[in-house]
Amino acid sequence: MSQNNLQELTKLIRADIVTSTTKAGSGHPTTSLSAVELMTVLWFGGYFHYDFDDPKYIFNDRMIFSKGHASPLLYSLYNAAGKITSDELMTLRKFTSRLEGHPTTNIPWVDVATGSLGQGLSVGIGMALGIKYQMKAQKKAPKREPYVWVLMGDSEFAEGQIYEALQVASQYKLNNLVGILDINRLGQRGATMLGWDLDTYQARLEAFGWNTVIVEAGNNLEAVTESFKHIHNNIAPTMILAKTKKGAGISSVEDKDGWHGKPLTEEMAEEALKEIGEVDAKLVGSVEMPEKVTVQDLASDDISLPTTTPTAEMATREGYGEAMKYIAEDKSVVVLDAETSNSTYAEKMKEIAPERFFEMYIAEQNMVSVALGMSKIGLKPFASSFAAFLSRAYDQIRMAQYSDPNVTIVGSHAGVSIGEDGSSQMALEDIAMIRALLHSTVLYPSDPVSTVKLVNELRLREGLSYLRLTRAKTPTLYKPSDMFPIGGSKVLQSSEKDSAVIIAAGITVHEALKAHQELSKSAISVAVIDSYSVKPLDTNTLREYAQKTGHVIVVEDHYPDGGLGEAVRTALDGLNIKISHLCVRKTPRSGTPDELLRFEEIDAQAIVEAAKKLKP
Amino acid sequence: MSQNNLQELTKLIRADIVTSTTKAGSGHPTTSLSAVELMTVLWFGGYFHYDFDDPKYIFNDRMIFSKGHASPLLYSLYNAAGKITSDELMTLRKFTSRLEGHPTTNIPWVDVATGSLGQGLSVGIGMALGIKYQMKAQKKAPKREPYVWVLMGDSEFAEGQIYEALQVASQYKLNNLVGILDINRLGQRGATMLGWDLDTYQARLEAFGWNTVIVEAGNNLEAVTESFKHIHNNIAPTMILAKTKKGAGISSVEDKDGWHGKPLTEEMAEEALKEIGEVDAKLVGSVEMPEKVTVQDLASDDISLPTTTPTAEMATREGYGEAMKYIAEDKSVVVLDAETSNSTYAEKMKEIAPERFFEMYIAEQNMVSVALGMSKIGLKPFASSFAAFLSRAYDQIRMAQYSDPNVTIVGSHAGVSIGEDGSSQMALEDIAMIRALLHSTVLYPSDPVSTVKLVNELRLREGLSYLRLTRAKTPTLYKPSDMFPIGGSKVLQSSEKDSAVIIAAGITVHEALKAHQELSKSAISVAVIDSYSVKPLDTNTLREYAQKTGHVIVVEDHYPDGGLGEAVRTALDGLNIKISHLCVRKTPRSGTPDELLRFEEIDAQAIVEAAKKLKP
Repeated sequence: MSQNNLQELTKLIRADIVTSTTKAGSGHPTTSLSAVELMTVLWFGGYFHYDFDDPKYIFNDRMIFSKGHASPLLYSLYNAAGKITSDELMTLRKFTSRLEGHPTTNIPWVDVATGSLGQGLSVGIGMALGIKYQMKAQKKAPKREPYVWVLMGDSEFAEGQIYEALQVASQYKLNNLVGILDINRLGQRGATMLGWDLDTYQARLEAFGWNTVIVEAGNNLEAVTESFKHIHNNIAPTMILAKTKKGAGISSVEDKDGWHGKPLTEEMAEEALKEIGEVDAKLVGSVEMPEKVTVQDLASDDISLPTTTPTAEMATREGYGEAMKYIAEDKSVVVLDAETSNSTYAEKMKEIAPERFFEMYIAEQNMVSVALGMSKIGLKPFASSFAAFLSRAYDQIRMAQYSDPNVTIVGSHAGVSIGEDGSSQMALEDIAMIRALLHSTVLYPSDPVSTVKLVNELRLREGLSYLRLTRAKTPTLYKPSDMFPIGGSKVLQSSEKDSAVIIAAGITVHEALKAHQELSKSAISVAVIDSYSVKPLDTNTLREYAQKTGHVIVVEDHYPDGGLGEAVRTALDGLNIKISHLCVRKTPRSGTPDELLRFEEIDAQAIVEAAKKLKP
Repeated sequence: MSQNNLQELTKLIRADIVTSTTKAGSGHPTTSLSAVELMTVLWFGGYFHYDFDDPKYIFNDRMIFSKGHASPLLYSLYNAAGKITSDELMTLRKFTSRLEGHPTTNIPWVDVATGSLGQGLSVGIGMALGIKYQMKAQKKAPKREPYVWVLMGDSEFAEGQIYEALQVASQYKLNNLVGILDINRLGQRGATMLGWDLDTYQARLEAFGWNTVIVEAGNNLEAVTESFKHIHNNIAPTMILAKTKKGAGISSVEDKDGWHGKPLTEEMAEEALKEIGEVDAKLVGSVEMPEKVTVQDLASDDISLPTTTPTAEMATREGYGEAMKYIAEDKSVVVLDAETSNSTYAEKMKEIAPERFFEMYIAEQNMVSVALGMSKIGLKPFASSFAAFLSRAYDQIRMAQYSDPNVTIVGSHAGVSIGEDGSSQMALEDIAMIRALLHSTVLYPSDPVSTVKLVNELRLREGLSYLRLTRAKTPTLYKPSDMFPIGGSKVLQSSEKDSAVIIAAGITVHEALKAHQELSKSAISVAVIDSYSVKPLDTNTLREYAQKTGHVIVVEDHYPDGGLGEAVRTALDGLNIKISHLCVRKTPRSGTPDELLRFEEIDAQAIVEAAKKLKP
């Protein structure tokens, strides 16, 4: 479009931002106003290539509003592009509207929910990597490699995740990734650390291997237009560093402190509209269409699964490595790991399909958001690290739940059974952490056969899932023909004389089986259930055995609150059954796995003692 | 000590690292070996000032092994300093030993447990800030301002938290903070991103406002000795960037990939000891003593608390601001906030005692670790942000639990009741997240009076605590004379005819009270309990009322798993009572608080319906 039309569009967008937020009575107009010129040039200046009628098209450019509170700007762009009506724009923040306070996937053109700051650039990396992979994997690719555009605020540049993203983006030479940093100098409660010190921003970006483009006048349309001519770089991602003013264009709030997250009063809004001047409400900005090519779904539902049982003893984390051999057949599967792939066995994917293994270094936050971004480009990411360190990325996992994700998080080295490395390396809150998310899946296999099967189940499952793995080698319990549906369980021992049911998962399944054997010497019969699906839980089976036996012993390698024990309690709601809950109740320490299982009283001996106490 | 003695000490330390890890059969000798010269010069070259007999002395220098897996080096330093015996050193990683796989506070000279990488520098900031504050607050301060020394690995420089720390340390001009970066080029599974590219490290550090000292030969004692002469800077923290070799000094493993976290075999160890040469096991390195001054405890147990009730309506987050007026009397109280202080009302402390308010910007990970560090210098930190964003710092909170913390985390804007901002800003997993930690405290007040009282209780409580606060204004329920012990609850409504007890906390207490009134119109009587102490829970009272009424309705503004509902279930273990659990079961969105409470069926109407269903 002509510069003149672009200028007119900025007026329309500015007016819409002011009007919609004042109407809503809340929201972030000043945050939105600072980036009007940047977004107008990007969207309507021919840079952003996007098919609004086919938002899932993998060769669309992608646009992420990492500064999600600038949603009034995003929605005003939709209106300026003729994709929503002015009437809909005025429903901003209403209960019945899809135009929420922060962008969500209720809007078809929003790939990921934003609003927790500092995550968008990492999501963009996932998309940029995904696009580069798809450009090679698809039979036909468009001539122009699609770009991923990420709008960021300067306040969010304080988040460490930004720097995790910066380093990984340049490491992977993501020249199809462009960050647009709206440096408006003002945060929620005052000035940012760097203010308008563009030199320092530039020095930081360059030290992280980025190409930089400086715009000293970020609210001047010509200056912004000029800057976009310099975004391409052959080997590096680019960051546009734009000096802008918060509330730009509206003198009553421009560059003024105290106006974060506040709409203008009606009087101020009226004054602001006068200042903007006459607006052509009929003006529609045009967004470039991407070249459309036929895209094949890389996923394959059917893959061959193992037909023979692995060795008699194998850790479930090794089972995860085994699973790579099979799920690698599905070309949509990608594997990420945070510098622990020789421990998590994710490295097996690197051996089988190096182009689908992504080293994410010790930066778990970025890894999780990258995985989310990849899942938006037709891929099925599995992202692994030590389970303890996934707590580092809890906010990223939390946000993923609002983004229609297709992501599996894999945590190895769970529980005290890791032994000598000690408490810092032991995940003992991870089940609680992931269970707490609304629509999550939590699986915890006890042997390599069930691990391989469950990894495949997760491959086929949409959503946000967690696989908990054990460091120690354990006996193989199952046959290749056994099935492990999500939401199921395995009754490993059961008889008519059972006086209790032991519900276990992962490492404690083996302790439960040992206890079963030991108890049988005292003529005490107990049922043993492998509750490998912690969420959803196999409620029917657990209730049936609880009622049949009259006593429940839950044993888990996890702290007391929020784990398998509480999940079982909820599942048994209304049954008049006392539950013995064996779990980690003392601060753990270094020692051998056996010493620690003993110390925490979650070993066979503890189960035996608990069962004996129950005997009538 | 003389250079010659230092050289001899490096031999002793090297031999100890090799021997102790080979004996243990696990551990990280190569990680330890690369930093031998750096630590020998620091400890025994006169730089580290520390009284081993008085480790809590606030004017000690502090030493943090952020690369906690280098624990064999730390323990060998203890041995070289004559603080532990060689025999004890050989108990490394044993169940009965305090010398764990990663350093823990079981050792009196370890202030904080490390092992989750990238956290040590932030803890160091907390200590450095704490020392600077104490230097002014104490009547007498030592002439030399104590230093905080943080040993880091290059792999952990991928963690975003490092950059959060870098920016805040220079922002606060922490010239008493020295980072020592052991650039040995090799991570767990291979090369780091930057390898030995010291120039890029330097450029990054300088872009973050740090003074840098380069040591090209980080395993050469003379070069390291020279570098320590340049650590002081008047206005900036200093980072020593040392090029080292992993496994330095032992040719079989030096700079070789595949030797992370592996002890040498006995044969290799024997060979290594030969290579090190004769060692003087009697040699004892001397560590400088700090100047000892009399230190006063800044804490005051008794402070004046409010005697009048605040306005009829006030949000609990405002109550937190109110509390500042009182707890500020205790000069050991410090307040940190992540760029949200005008929303969390933490800004009240800035008004009252600006020297005890610390702006931490939008970098929650660093904030939590800084708070932990401050708690080690005789201070009582309260660290606040939106509760949703504290999930960003879950690993840091997790690690704090292993460090004898005295830290209160404060999360405002919890639950769907925040309204229009939408799901990204709603903490709905936070109770589960903090409950899951082993020795945590979780409080959730419903009015400003109880908020002030509970903040004071937390001021007096050691440990790791969480205070959950609400955005919306709510009626004031309590009188200044009411007491709110941790572990207690308040029975707000109760009669002999109660057919159920409603257990609520925070915002839902008000819904429960409305429901009580509404139900009374239908001649249905219910008890209402404000369970403000979510952990520890007032089990006795809850069990009493559950038994008395026969029906329990739990209502909470939180997702189903791991919150108040499951806590109550556990507390009612063995009672034959069905629990109605009203909580957030649908993905929330933007809307008014009332619309959202209705949508999620956690409002008065939902409670009324649940109670009516129960009626016999």
